[in-house]
Amino acid sequence: MRKVNIGLVGCGTVGSGVVQGLARNGALMGSRLGVELSLGGVAVRNAGKARAARVAKRLITTDWEALVRDPKIDVVMELMGGTTTARKVVAEALKLGKPVITANKALISAHGESIFRQVEKNGGNLYYEAAVAGGIPIIKSLREGLSGNRIQRLYGILNGTCNYILTQMEAEGRDFEDILAEAQRMGYAEAEPSLDVDGFDAQHKAGILASLAHGFWIKPSQIFVEGIRQITTLDIEFARRMGYCIKLLGIVKKLGDNVQIAVHPALVPERHVLANVSGVYNAILVRGDIVGDTLHYGQGAGADATASAVLSDLADAALDLKNGSMGRVPPFVPHEEKGSVLPMDKAVSPFYLRLSVIDRPGTLAKIAAVLGEAKIGICSVMQPEGHVGESVPLIMMLHDAPDAAMQKALKRIARLSAVKAKPTMIRVENFD
Amino acid sequence: MRKVNIGLVGCGTVGSGVVQGLARNGALMGSRLGVELSLGGVAVRNAGKARAARVAKRLITTDWEALVRDPKIDVVMELMGGTTTARKVVAEALKLGKPVITANKALISAHGESIFRQVEKNGGNLYYEAAVAGGIPIIKSLREGLSGNRIQRLYGILNGTCNYILTQMEAEGRDFEDILAEAQRMGYAEAEPSLDVDGFDAQHKAGILASLAHGFWIKPSQIFVEGIRQITTLDIEFARRMGYCIKLLGIVKKLGDNVQIAVHPALVPERHVLANVSGVYNAILVRGDIVGDTLHYGQGAGADATASAVLSDLADAALDLKNGSMGRVPPFVPHEEKGSVLPMDKAVSPFYLRLSVIDRPGTLAKIAAVLGEAKIGICSVMQPEGHVGESVPLIMMLHDAPDAAMQKALKRIARLSAVKAKPTMIRVENFD
Repeated sequence: MRKVNIGLVGCGTVGSGVVQGLARNGALMGSRLGVELSLGGVAVRNAGKARAARVAKRLITTDWEALVRDPKIDVVMELMGGTTTARKVVAEALKLGKPVITANKALISAHGESIFRQVEKNGGNLYYEAAVAGGIPIIKSLREGLSGNRIQRLYGILNGTCNYILTQMEAEGRDFEDILAEAQRMGYAEAEPSLDVDGFDAQHKAGILASLAHGFWIKPSQIFVEGIRQITTLDIEFARRMGYCIKLLGIVKKLGDNVQIAVHPALVPERHVLANVSGVYNAILVRGDIVGDTLHYGQGAGADATASAVLSDLADAALDLKNGSMGRVPPFVPHEEKGSVLPMDKAVSPFYLRLSVIDRPGTLAKIAAVLGEAKIGICSVMQPEGHVGESVPLIMMLHDAPDAAMQKALKRIARLSAVKAKPTMIRVENFD
Repeated sequence: MRKVNIGLVGCGTVGSGVVQGLARNGALMGSRLGVELSLGGVAVRNAGKARAARVAKRLITTDWEALVRDPKIDVVMELMGGTTTARKVVAEALKLGKPVITANKALISAHGESIFRQVEKNGGNLYYEAAVAGGIPIIKSLREGLSGNRIQRLYGILNGTCNYILTQMEAEGRDFEDILAEAQRMGYAEAEPSLDVDGFDAQHKAGILASLAHGFWIKPSQIFVEGIRQITTLDIEFARRMGYCIKLLGIVKKLGDNVQIAVHPALVPERHVLANVSGVYNAILVRGDIVGDTLHYGQGAGADATASAVLSDLADAALDLKNGSMGRVPPFVPHEEKGSVLPMDKAVSPFYLRLSVIDRPGTLAKIAAVLGEAKIGICSVMQPEGHVGESVPLIMMLHDAPDAAMQKALKRIARLSAVKAKPTMIRVENFD
């Protein structure tokens, strides 16, 4: 039986998860695949450091270059994270024509195009299922399972931390800061939460998925992003009363020749399947022109879910080694030469608007006038009773309008003397 | 560029969907895959018959054998259905070492093992993503995307007709027969509905999924099946009051060395993701020992969803032809030699029981005595007010018990003089 020797670079959370997964299910995988999977070496920065997985001492090295170059190593797993040394590890392995498996979303996002060019030039292959939505085999589904389809829409709950925070805010009626602190204590959020709560993590993931779906590489800088810091329990409560919940969505729409792509909080109708994706779970709704709507749901992060994705990439790499079909599914096929990203200004959606206004006659008229001049129709207005104090909340649902018009009107509204505090605007997604 | 010539056998609903899909997206698929896809011929029974897809006359033949044997044909699609001629088509193509794509669940279910043996002997390959849950790439996900996992649980809403009927019964409060007749008019149910509503279609699908998950072939005859004919609007209403909805589930559980597998209606907690799968949609919840829960959702049937699955198989076959990796993922790997199916008698679950009883003192005591002797605990009892007439409904929720004990108690209860009409028992699934 063909033996496949794995060289693992990085043995932190994900790396340890992979070592444990291999120890538990490596033999089963081998019998499913008809190969013998073997851990050939583990390169780490600090050989003496305690780690979650037990690794035989003879397998540990601090010299990743020697491990990657070892002719006995058939496949390299880059699970160290970061984009500097990781970039070198991947480049070195590819130079030797070895298949590389990575869970490194930042690396793919930042250097994907040049890595893909190297694969094309040197052979080998790059597998990165674990880089997006860990436990969900979405990259395989997009590239293989749905390959007969033009992808018309893709909506993703792509960041477990944000989804956990929004779910808890709704369930417990507690503020963002409060739930974030709790999530940090429980290990669901990083000490430096910006990457998650400001939407950048989802931005990277949405970019990779959109690129695969549409056949041209979309950089994070081309993707509008807005995080969840400004969402309050008031917004969640008012959205709920109108039959919506609030989710951080990655949204990718094919509109004519253009692709509209953005990451921002959105009001989602409460009966929609994505509304029921709670806690740290991720889900991706993909609409193909032939298949219709499909939903892909699972844990998006964590050592085990990510390890599962790495192991499925290992299975693919092992099969490609066994069958001599290394470049069978290239990491990225740029099949769309004319692809372009639609500027966010032109994105059209309905809007939720929450203002803090002084409760005096004429206020609504002034706001309505600004919206009227911007050609933005008002769908409904809610001024809930029971709020006392200098200012009261005024909630408006607005009809479809271009983002630019809304942004402009929003600035004018913010300057009205009757409007206290910064207005909160959240886009509404009806999944049309 | 490598050209892949497709020989299509059968051009009914699914075949026409594939022809249309190829016409629409064949060039896109080709650029994604780096091959040229070409329809090389279409074998039909009646050349003159009108069909949904436009096929050039020169491609049409009534001689499937000549088409399959034509050396220009690289890959054969068996989309005729049935198990007699279809079996011959598949056997002939495999004999020639050609890859075969089929959407024929009945064929795989009945003759899977002998077909798989032929693939092993003669080369070629068999692709059958379309045979289970059309638009959902569940076969690829089980065999590749989740290949690093032991599958602990699999729960599937596998029959769109039943799910449509149950969804409509709940939404509109109308009876099974009424909704079935409507579904037949709308084309969601066959004139002869038994295959769907008695659970046999789901039984075939559950068997294929369970076999892939557990590595030994499970025949439909080994799978307990119960359909949805006995479900009434009363049951749906009482279930709803207790926080459940009713779904026809395929249930596959790994319990020690055994696999428990059944298809039957079940009470599903209304907050569970599967409870929110409505209408003709299918969904499969897969729990892996590493990845945790994943959900795979989409349209399970219909020309387009099935065509999408056939096209994804075509993509795999084309890549395998291009790379000379034909047997890369065999149709079935029997990796579990000791696998066995647990008899349904031993399956343990809570139960919902609806009786029609005479409203007189002592009735409940007699029923409770039978349950007590069977060691089945009563969790709750509901005797709703407002029912008049000779008998009234009595609803009981029962604690975990073996199926055999429940069945025995049920027979005794049915014989009590206070119990009118046949008792309705529905298993409860808590997804533990």
